[in-house]
Amino acid sequence: MVRCRALYFDGTSLRLIDDHVVERGNEVLVRVRYAGICGTDLQILRGYAGFRGVPGHEFVGVVKEADDPNLIGRRVVGEINVACGKCDMCSIGLRRHCRNRTVLGIAGRHGSFSEYLKLPPENLHPVPDGVTDEEAVFVEPLAAALEISEQLHIEPTFRAAVVGDGRLANLIAQVLRYRVQELRVFGRHERKLRLLEELGIEVALSVSEEDRAKYDLVVEATGRDSGLKTAIELVRPRGTVVLKSTIAGEYRIDLAPVVVNEIRLVGSRCGQFPPAITALRQKLVDVRRLIDGIYPLESYLEAFEAASSPGTMKVLLKP
Amino acid sequence: MVRCRALYFDGTSLRLIDDHVVERGNEVLVRVRYAGICGTDLQILRGYAGFRGVPGHEFVGVVKEADDPNLIGRRVVGEINVACGKCDMCSIGLRRHCRNRTVLGIAGRHGSFSEYLKLPPENLHPVPDGVTDEEAVFVEPLAAALEISEQLHIEPTFRAAVVGDGRLANLIAQVLRYRVQELRVFGRHERKLRLLEELGIEVALSVSEEDRAKYDLVVEATGRDSGLKTAIELVRPRGTVVLKSTIAGEYRIDLAPVVVNEIRLVGSRCGQFPPAITALRQKLVDVRRLIDGIYPLESYLEAFEAASSPGTMKVLLKP
Repeated sequence: MVRCRALYFDGTSLRLIDDHVVERGNEVLVRVRYAGICGTDLQILRGYAGFRGVPGHEFVGVVKEADDPNLIGRRVVGEINVACGKCDMCSIGLRRHCRNRTVLGIAGRHGSFSEYLKLPPENLHPVPDGVTDEEAVFVEPLAAALEISEQLHIEPTFRAAVVGDGRLANLIAQVLRYRVQELRVFGRHERKLRLLEELGIEVALSVSEEDRAKYDLVVEATGRDSGLKTAIELVRPRGTVVLKSTIAGEYRIDLAPVVVNEIRLVGSRCGQFPPAITALRQKLVDVRRLIDGIYPLESYLEAFEAASSPGTMKVLLKP
Repeated sequence: MVRCRALYFDGTSLRLIDDHVVERGNEVLVRVRYAGICGTDLQILRGYAGFRGVPGHEFVGVVKEADDPNLIGRRVVGEINVACGKCDMCSIGLRRHCRNRTVLGIAGRHGSFSEYLKLPPENLHPVPDGVTDEEAVFVEPLAAALEISEQLHIEPTFRAAVVGDGRLANLIAQVLRYRVQELRVFGRHERKLRLLEELGIEVALSVSEEDRAKYDLVVEATGRDSGLKTAIELVRPRGTVVLKSTIAGEYRIDLAPVVVNEIRLVGSRCGQFPPAITALRQKLVDVRRLIDGIYPLESYLEAFEAASSPGTMKVLLKP
């Protein structure tokens, strides 16, 4: 059991507390080194998922206490869904969809905006030496980006588009670029698009007549409801739109083109960690330039303000 | 060239005309025996697709004139999408998604609510002797029902649900029953559900707690926007919802469960005719009991009133 500093969300506001208790039980106690602020965290502070407690689900840390002595001192990242192992979803291998799951900093489990967190040992993955802490904190969102290729067969002949230019959209574009014949990112922020251009990725500020109904695969990762409308404009008949934005509230959308053009919409959430760790180790993805700022826990107001600003990519907390 | 009687929609109202000209060119002239009234026709009369002309796309008829003398006198049904054969969609075999297509009674081409219609010879399929006219007029909607299994791999272990109890929902249920382990139809009209029960298909008037997030495959065929909400309630994580309703206007929908549960939504429209003809020939599907009334062209007001009534299944016109 440790008592430590953490950010606590009571349903209305976030505040720094110094008496957050983490009782590890049979789980593993991890000292958090970095925690990333994600779009979902910003949604949670607006009421998404009705979460109360310590938010945060992206992290890299060092094992402080565990039943297995080999784990102690290891640098780790952690899968955020904690499964029961017994329900129908667990029994068909869909542990991330466990009916009784808790989710780190999102549902029924305190998260990573804290000096310490706990997770079961099976959720943890060691970080190889070639991957720095600043890179490892991106394993969770990078796994979410790679989830698309677990769900879909991405053909090398595909023409693909990403709608959005933020944190997750950037990672998705970096992952897709090696897998498709043609890739274009449609964004709204010149600075963010420039980050992609510097990696040799084609970008656009608006949808041209030629782009309409052209793409085999379109990934919507804007975090805004207008993104889906653009995605449906871009996708070809019988093509696929992947929905990556979890948005609280209702969309207003004309689904007639989805039926007439027989489009597939595929919701996509968390991914597996090992391919994300591999992609970082192999330097296939450049995450370092996405970090806009690193803040200590006590500067959380500043950190969240920075993370909410439209021009920002990734903000890290260093608890 | 023939001059004949037909129903004409001018964008505001439908009326019977007696000077409808059908000039076949290189196409085939067909004397219509029966034309079915479909949900899409009712939508068209409310403004869907901005169609002007003779509506109607379900029919069975007899070839009157054709370049190929072997066709003359043959009983035929016809695929409704007329493709250019040259665009990128045609070149990958997706002729029903041709960029330049016309669609019988729906887009740029007069339809089957007429004594005569024309279609290219490659769109026509002969009707085998064992299939009556009253059955053959169901080939088009039955092909739309079978389209689901062209788009998706339906595993025999699936638990499937159909939302809706109308014309198309009934055909979809009849097609799915032989392909899945468990099937339940969720409807609102006791009489329509009884038609399914008589075929040994399980039905329900409401979604129970046990039904929630249970089904591997859910087909939405209500023709109303509330159907999608129910479908998303029924489908399991990583399951598939097929959208069959083409509805004019916007849906209001909360897509967060689609993302969190990684659901696939698949739009589905027209299907291939040969498997539908085979299903009728093999008596795998019972369509005769779906016919609620047969009206001559001049009784079109009565026919459309009957087709619009919530208790009605299929209404046929006999031009």
